[in-house]
Amino acid sequence: MIKATVLYKNEEGKNFDMKYYIETHIPLVKRLLGSACKKAEVEKGLSGQTPGSSPAYTVIGYLYFDSIEDFQNSFGPNANEIVNDVPNFTDIIPVVQISDVII
Amino acid sequence: MIKATVLYKNEEGKNFDMKYYIETHIPLVKRLLGSACKKAEVEKGLSGQTPGSSPAYTVIGYLYFDSIEDFQNSFGPNANEIVNDVPNFTDIIPVVQISDVII
Repeated sequence: MIKATVLYKNEEGKNFDMKYYIETHIPLVKRLLGSACKKAEVEKGLSGQTPGSSPAYTVIGYLYFDSIEDFQNSFGPNANEIVNDVPNFTDIIPVVQISDVII
Repeated sequence: MIKATVLYKNEEGKNFDMKYYIETHIPLVKRLLGSACKKAEVEKGLSGQTPGSSPAYTVIGYLYFDSIEDFQNSFGPNANEIVNDVPNFTDIIPVVQISDVII
């Protein structure tokens, strides 16, 4: 299985509207990608390794696909609409990577 | 649910032994943490957002716990043994964060 991992860095003075992200952005992404996107997951950074320290990432989102081709074929034609929605919930430029799910 | 997310940055000239990580390190961690650790997941970075680009992270590992207390109580007493095993599979210093699983 393939994951698109979208990392929103924890940067001073930046904003992230979790309500919009969960209630509007993720549903938009799932609607656009259709059945190619098997699952979406979201984690919110609480701390670094030591209690009270800052997490490296404010939010990390994950989208699961059966194959790279499924990702490319579903994401490619919708990339603009998805990317254009990002400023509606954050001014952080996300880091995106494609990963192979090992376990 | 709580996740410990362990990110191994993709740095030039660094090594990562995936076989040791999957076959020895993750089982060691699960054994030490016991029933507090509900699940372990591992992804291997294939590319950045565009095909052929480099992923930000070579490997990202995830450990799931019911609560921060479960993480702290199980990880704390075993932290040294876990951290001391890291040089056996990589010379990358991982970034660790504790996250809340939103969806």
